[in-house]
Amino acid sequence: MALLVQKYGGTSVGSVERIQAVADKIIKFRERGDDIVVVVSAMSGETNRLTAMAMEMMEQPTPREMDVLLSTGEQVTIALLCMALEARGMGAHSFTGGQVRILTDTSHMKARIKEIDGTRIHAQLEQGNVVVVAGFQGVDEQGNITTLGRGGSDTTAVALAAALEADECQIYTDVKGVYTTDPRVVPDARLLTSITCEEMLELASLGAKVLQIRSVEFAGKYKVPLRVLSSFEEGPGTLISLEEESDMEDPAIAGIAFERDEAKLTVTGVPDIPGIAYKVIGPVSEAGIEVDVIVQNAAADGSNDISFTVKRGESEKAKKILEQVATSLKAREAVLDKKICKVSLVGVGMRSHAGIAAKMFKCLADESINIQIITTSEIKISVVIEEKYLELAVRALHAAFELGDPDYIPNSN
Amino acid sequence: MALLVQKYGGTSVGSVERIQAVADKIIKFRERGDDIVVVVSAMSGETNRLTAMAMEMMEQPTPREMDVLLSTGEQVTIALLCMALEARGMGAHSFTGGQVRILTDTSHMKARIKEIDGTRIHAQLEQGNVVVVAGFQGVDEQGNITTLGRGGSDTTAVALAAALEADECQIYTDVKGVYTTDPRVVPDARLLTSITCEEMLELASLGAKVLQIRSVEFAGKYKVPLRVLSSFEEGPGTLISLEEESDMEDPAIAGIAFERDEAKLTVTGVPDIPGIAYKVIGPVSEAGIEVDVIVQNAAADGSNDISFTVKRGESEKAKKILEQVATSLKAREAVLDKKICKVSLVGVGMRSHAGIAAKMFKCLADESINIQIITTSEIKISVVIEEKYLELAVRALHAAFELGDPDYIPNSN
Repeated sequence: MALLVQKYGGTSVGSVERIQAVADKIIKFRERGDDIVVVVSAMSGETNRLTAMAMEMMEQPTPREMDVLLSTGEQVTIALLCMALEARGMGAHSFTGGQVRILTDTSHMKARIKEIDGTRIHAQLEQGNVVVVAGFQGVDEQGNITTLGRGGSDTTAVALAAALEADECQIYTDVKGVYTTDPRVVPDARLLTSITCEEMLELASLGAKVLQIRSVEFAGKYKVPLRVLSSFEEGPGTLISLEEESDMEDPAIAGIAFERDEAKLTVTGVPDIPGIAYKVIGPVSEAGIEVDVIVQNAAADGSNDISFTVKRGESEKAKKILEQVATSLKAREAVLDKKICKVSLVGVGMRSHAGIAAKMFKCLADESINIQIITTSEIKISVVIEEKYLELAVRALHAAFELGDPDYIPNSN
Repeated sequence: MALLVQKYGGTSVGSVERIQAVADKIIKFRERGDDIVVVVSAMSGETNRLTAMAMEMMEQPTPREMDVLLSTGEQVTIALLCMALEARGMGAHSFTGGQVRILTDTSHMKARIKEIDGTRIHAQLEQGNVVVVAGFQGVDEQGNITTLGRGGSDTTAVALAAALEADECQIYTDVKGVYTTDPRVVPDARLLTSITCEEMLELASLGAKVLQIRSVEFAGKYKVPLRVLSSFEEGPGTLISLEEESDMEDPAIAGIAFERDEAKLTVTGVPDIPGIAYKVIGPVSEAGIEVDVIVQNAAADGSNDISFTVKRGESEKAKKILEQVATSLKAREAVLDKKICKVSLVGVGMRSHAGIAAKMFKCLADESINIQIITTSEIKISVVIEEKYLELAVRALHAAFELGDPDYIPNSN
């Protein structure tokens, strides 16, 4: 008999009918003899509906009251799911974040979990009930309602699994699991049966939005076996494993991530003096703009080009700041290029497999794709290229590293 | 500087715009220097929307989960109203029932308030904030969310006013106050400036649905001055006073209530033996049907007719039971009359004014209205008559007892 924590997102509980389907699913697990703790999000659309009303009240709604407002979304779902379970003869008991007691700090709208008391949940499990917990929410020391920020239900599920020492935390979503890359770009992208926590973190932060980053960090930190599966289709999904695969036969690369939503800024002709990178990047960061990859090239004439990427939506703002910086540094010019993208290979196997980078660069060269920036970490190589080559690059790399599904039949979808 | 508890019902907070109008209203009071605690209902329509989803889940939703579900309605309103106040530069702080701590028993969907802790509310008032409390809800000893049943927000307001020793509890609604009778039936019905608690109880229980009965009982028991006013129009409304008016010049009658939703059942030819009334009424009550007025007439032949009224919706069910009773008692027959109504005069002045009943009966006789049943209490006389005479009877009585508004101008509406 296992203890499973299952999380169902907004789409999975998006209507009365879908909540009923989730109830049917839960009962199947329960009938196997497993103990089930369910974490649910607000019904899809609900958070947006509530936010819209708040925005009509004030442009920047008070964070404390925003949390009081938004936390009702999950509270509705827990009640409805419990009713659906009870209607099917299955005992069920709901808890809000405050009732469990999921204790957080007081940072409204982006609270962090400090402690979870499992006593009341264990008592309900012992009575044979399915326990249904509102995701995304908690309560601070003073009893104020807090929320963990968007996607926080994943974090609730993993944190609960850790606190309850669950055997597995299952995140039900609208995809079958984690793929080697986006199947919309590469039709034979393969569903991974497992992936390491580190790899998942790199993939998630690079734009594969299957799981919230914090929940993966949590799973790694507290050694919670985490699995991503589909709410709508049968299948084992992808296990985010805690240990690195030691099998040397394993492919070096787990997957290919990409990010379209970036822009590149370059200041050319910057004097080559110590601290110059800080003088360029500092003002941009101070304006609250997140800077991604940074590269500095020394030219033969003793001057420098410094390039970096930011989110595309913030690129115009960054350019204005950079123009002032360029003037004050007597640099040549500040250039903005919005038509770029970032493609990354991720895999813990890189550590033991040499030549991955070389193979990647050759593959792109064979396709005549020019690399503008390269950055590497221990388990990742990222390149910035022209946006129009994105699909071509991803498909070529996917084929070169043999990531495709051997059972793939073209045009079967 | 007064401490006011103000309650705004579902219609008063039925949209973003109406919540903003309530915020404007509250700020006017605050600017006079009064401390304000606001109790709000769910936005109109919200409770029905949530109930409809629950009914799709199961025919008789689990009461505990129903309370988890329905309590979100008021939670949304408190957050939105606080935002509207803050957007206008007014400090505001929301509390759910559980956060205040409005402690109730565990009777889900019809919980009773046991205790209210005013500490946190007083602390917020001392900081100059408007306090906004979710009506209708509380929490039991175990931390389960409870609700007080429909209309329970009135009870929350009065109970809070009692606990906080407020100077007045103001119930804002969609009518201007309590009238001598329904203005839709009698156009010159007069708005009462005050009415005693006892009179209000009789009027409320007789069908004048301005205030929830329990809130009036609470106000009487805990000596809370209670006022009913309009959210949408200026005016002093009606004060539900704690002391009986001692002024002998006051009219004997406060108002006329009526109830359309009744039906009369009669068993004829019942043997005149001790305990026979119980044998007739007992089975009906045991079936969970509420019996209103009851009358027993001994006929010259030693047999009896027993008549009573029930809610019209339950009358067919009551008739079936009564037919069995009639058979077993060898009574003549069981008759159902759905076309009746009840009209009542209410007033504490009846105690000191003789001849009220005689005047009432003469007035009805003058209009050729036949009285089927009469019941009386210390401050009330009710008659059951044919439904088609309802408007005629109410208008005639309203005129006979001079209850009309002397300033009324016909067709001014």
